[in-house]
Amino acid sequence: MGAEFRNRVISSIERLHHQATDLIAELDRGGVAFREDHWEREGGGGGVSRMLTEGATFEKAGVNRSVVEGVLAPQLAQRLGAHVSALEEARFFVTGLSLVAHPRSPMVPTVHLNVRYFEIADPSGEIRDAWFGGGTDLTPTYPYPEDAVHFHRTLKTACDRHHPSFYPRFKTWCDHYFVNTHRSEERRGVGGIFFDNLRAGEAGLCLERLHAFVAEIGSVLSSAYGPIVERRRHTEYGERERQFQLARRGRYVEFNLVHDRGTLFGLQTGARIESVLMSLPPLAAWPPSPAYAPGSFEARLLEMLEPREWVQ
Amino acid sequence: MGAEFRNRVISSIERLHHQATDLIAELDRGGVAFREDHWEREGGGGGVSRMLTEGATFEKAGVNRSVVEGVLAPQLAQRLGAHVSALEEARFFVTGLSLVAHPRSPMVPTVHLNVRYFEIADPSGEIRDAWFGGGTDLTPTYPYPEDAVHFHRTLKTACDRHHPSFYPRFKTWCDHYFVNTHRSEERRGVGGIFFDNLRAGEAGLCLERLHAFVAEIGSVLSSAYGPIVERRRHTEYGERERQFQLARRGRYVEFNLVHDRGTLFGLQTGARIESVLMSLPPLAAWPPSPAYAPGSFEARLLEMLEPREWVQ
Repeated sequence: MGAEFRNRVISSIERLHHQATDLIAELDRGGVAFREDHWEREGGGGGVSRMLTEGATFEKAGVNRSVVEGVLAPQLAQRLGAHVSALEEARFFVTGLSLVAHPRSPMVPTVHLNVRYFEIADPSGEIRDAWFGGGTDLTPTYPYPEDAVHFHRTLKTACDRHHPSFYPRFKTWCDHYFVNTHRSEERRGVGGIFFDNLRAGEAGLCLERLHAFVAEIGSVLSSAYGPIVERRRHTEYGERERQFQLARRGRYVEFNLVHDRGTLFGLQTGARIESVLMSLPPLAAWPPSPAYAPGSFEARLLEMLEPREWVQ
Repeated sequence: MGAEFRNRVISSIERLHHQATDLIAELDRGGVAFREDHWEREGGGGGVSRMLTEGATFEKAGVNRSVVEGVLAPQLAQRLGAHVSALEEARFFVTGLSLVAHPRSPMVPTVHLNVRYFEIADPSGEIRDAWFGGGTDLTPTYPYPEDAVHFHRTLKTACDRHHPSFYPRFKTWCDHYFVNTHRSEERRGVGGIFFDNLRAGEAGLCLERLHAFVAEIGSVLSSAYGPIVERRRHTEYGERERQFQLARRGRYVEFNLVHDRGTLFGLQTGARIESVLMSLPPLAAWPPSPAYAPGSFEARLLEMLEPREWVQ
């Protein structure tokens, strides 16, 4: 741990950011360029936001990276899981990558990915705590169980290369995280993996090895998500599928604004608001509460949101 | 204070609910009926939700009343402003009316109204605190300053009949309440009035007189909002106005899900979720952050959101 390690993480986030942008641009096939914005944060740091809108495949996709540092109220630091109870004032450093892609077609699922590295230092600058967090999850509108299986299987393979406990633990963690508790515990999607507070010693791995794991997750979408986009991209759909997609996106908005800790952290620490809220869909609906007929694709999708073992 | 007073408030909320439904139905002119749902809450109480969708004037309008009672964590009671620090367990009773109307035309402003009566009792049932709250506010998409003036003038006239301090105080309170603090303090709309924790003795008025005030606010929309709908209903508009309306509705969603205390209270106390979230617009958008040309109607609307004295 130290400046050298931190700089290597910053570089790897930067490289992952370029890769992720290239992946989305390639999957989009539209020739529409990302709009890139560089922003700086009062109090330290800044980031690069890349946004694609009205693409051929993606109605809206955002890929952001940021490096932010500053002073953190100990209360907020503790909510983030930092081991800093003795500190009166904590300094924080965080660098991360976030990706959210909202496809136009309801047959193509929405995907989200985030990886981040946190450090907490005392006022003298000495690092007191450091950890990785992240994850990726899939949010389909149309129920294709085989897509969920593919996504989870690819994640399991990636996780297994680093530690056999990772996939089962992080998959369960994800099932417990992306929940609209105010909607009878309905899940945002079919999950994936979610992890946080991975410190040196986690599963016997040093911070270097955890970095390698997180970097692998940061580039997993080309195999976990790319093939799903390719096989659903040209599937025809109608107005009913589109309307259901807009309603599901309403639930996505609810989760992100009411429950998501990352969004909350962004709103409270003064990150660039357009980047914090880039995860919101381009268009979302709140139709009157419908009753979906048993066996309809809408009812089958809702059943698919119940957590289950997608791979053995 | 007591069961007799409480019952009179319940009756008046019920009467206001019918009036409000009739007003929206009449303003809609579409002949589309409200869909009515009666719901009960586990733990005590229930309500009546009336929802109009795809009307001639209103894309979505909800008018709800509820009577809810139960046990409240003292922490939550204190956040509501209750004077109950000595209680270990508080019982609460609340009855209220909520109305949100989202017009289809961007030339017609969205309106919101709420009135409510709260009681806090100790475990033996003795009432320890009681107060009224409520308010109404206007959220235009298209900048017609004369509509804001009409709305505020009508509210001032209604308030002045009860106490000269009410309009100036409650107007300022409203300006400070409906704020997207995470969006550089941008206001949700052009305001109106907002008040809470009005107890017996407020401005020298007894609870009976406060009830009369709140009942007047509960029926103010026929004069405060009705004429605005009538004069804007047939104004033509284009796709640009519609797109701006959807983006403004995105901000409406952000306020309600991130900041609104009433929504938070509903989500935490297990009220019927469809009723709590009936305030959300039927359709909302998060377009890429646009720069509006100086003098454009969009820029003029944003200027109109800056708080000011609409009536002298």
